[in-house]
Amino acid sequence: MANIKVAKNAGFCFGVKIAVDSAIEAGEKYGRAYTNGPIIHNKQVVQILENLNVRELQSYEQLQEGDTILIRSHGVPPKIERTLKDLGVNLIDATCPFVKKVHEKVRQLVEEGYFVVIIGEKGHPEVIGILGHLEESGGKGIVVENMEDLIRKFPKRNRVGVVAQTTQNEEFFEEAVGYIASNVEELKVFNTICDATSVRQEEVKRLAKDVDVMIIIGGKHSGNTRRLAQISKALNPNTYHIEKADELNPVWFKNAENIGVSAGASTPDWIIKEVVEKIKEITA
Amino acid sequence: MANIKVAKNAGFCFGVKIAVDSAIEAGEKYGRAYTNGPIIHNKQVVQILENLNVRELQSYEQLQEGDTILIRSHGVPPKIERTLKDLGVNLIDATCPFVKKVHEKVRQLVEEGYFVVIIGEKGHPEVIGILGHLEESGGKGIVVENMEDLIRKFPKRNRVGVVAQTTQNEEFFEEAVGYIASNVEELKVFNTICDATSVRQEEVKRLAKDVDVMIIIGGKHSGNTRRLAQISKALNPNTYHIEKADELNPVWFKNAENIGVSAGASTPDWIIKEVVEKIKEITA
Repeated sequence: MANIKVAKNAGFCFGVKIAVDSAIEAGEKYGRAYTNGPIIHNKQVVQILENLNVRELQSYEQLQEGDTILIRSHGVPPKIERTLKDLGVNLIDATCPFVKKVHEKVRQLVEEGYFVVIIGEKGHPEVIGILGHLEESGGKGIVVENMEDLIRKFPKRNRVGVVAQTTQNEEFFEEAVGYIASNVEELKVFNTICDATSVRQEEVKRLAKDVDVMIIIGGKHSGNTRRLAQISKALNPNTYHIEKADELNPVWFKNAENIGVSAGASTPDWIIKEVVEKIKEITA
Repeated sequence: MANIKVAKNAGFCFGVKIAVDSAIEAGEKYGRAYTNGPIIHNKQVVQILENLNVRELQSYEQLQEGDTILIRSHGVPPKIERTLKDLGVNLIDATCPFVKKVHEKVRQLVEEGYFVVIIGEKGHPEVIGILGHLEESGGKGIVVENMEDLIRKFPKRNRVGVVAQTTQNEEFFEEAVGYIASNVEELKVFNTICDATSVRQEEVKRLAKDVDVMIIIGGKHSGNTRRLAQISKALNPNTYHIEKADELNPVWFKNAENIGVSAGASTPDWIIKEVVEKIKEITA
């Protein structure tokens, strides 16, 4: 049987745990609740929540006074928060504390007169929330996703401030900050990448080099999982990104002695366990 | 034959020009003057200055009241400036304005409570001057010369400020700033590297937009060359990074009318010439 090494820091992060727990609690307490978008990029967990009558909100018209709505860990732009408050609903704010810190830091940079560069994925809910705080505080800025994007968009500015989506790739963050530093006179950076992310990424780097096959578990739409897979693939071409155990292909493990497993921030433990059991079966 | 545009190169910098002019003026005006250390490493210029009786100061004992001494472009620690003033000499301060700005920025970082990282060569006169201003303002900090040095010395600090020796390598500056950013919570950087490198990058940006094919010459492991190639590629996909003329592929130049050429900081002139000749041959 192959040797399976599961990354210690795989799976749910602090912020996701809080959001999932809050959603379960809301379902149990109020008998019905909404979340603004899927609470995590994990179909299985979403199913559990649906059983508790906790569902993704489809439109504001759906909401009735007194309904409970939970803001997921990604956070929202301030105007959405206000809209919800104005509707008289019971608002549960499960925005990750690390994301809230990014909001504060963006506002601080704007106050101090910096043009803001947000290192993050365009269109990602967390980034939309951060942008909302940038706009609301009257600031100007851009979102950049990769080096070419940064080089193409980077405006002539003397004073630039930087924050990052909490789950950003550290290598891109470092490269981007370095590039910006050499193209401005003054740069202020708040390193808002959360520890869970960097620890998980560092572990995947070590693991990927050490094994024959790497399995990364997590939603195909989960940005942080895709990044883990990216990092792993750069160091080990035999990297496979899956959502569930039944996607495992026995061919991948032919002659594999050491197999590494890690998972994105929104992958619950029991899915990781299922995958490990299935790999054991395949390589038995 | 295609039209080949080679990026221009800059000559003597602004600060050295000021210092040399001031020294000549001092010699002509006062009939004798000293400089604190060699003003420039160029035999012809040193000879001209000696003919004007402008020489390097060997020791303070040499100085008599009323003598003229010129502080060269590198600047000095504040206590040296005070010592000279106390000696009652005629002080000409030819410190480069860009170096003076580093002194100011170090003091600002100390005032704002940052631990200071000076990116520069230990023992270089400019760095000794900068360190003098750091110490005089009661700040704490380190000088780092390369990445190993930085990684070895970097202390656990939450808030770090960075300045650079004006002639520092941009590539090391970028890498260092990136590394520091990912190891602190808050970083403030004053990019005090003087324009030469950024001028080269700006030129590549203009050139890349104007031509059909861009050739960037320089070591494949040279960060500053790779950066030039990256910048060029973002604006012109027909960018090729080569080390030597024999890597040129005739296919690249099919139908190309305008060809741009630039090179990294460490590429000797004769290699650039060889490449240009080879392109002429290919496109003849």
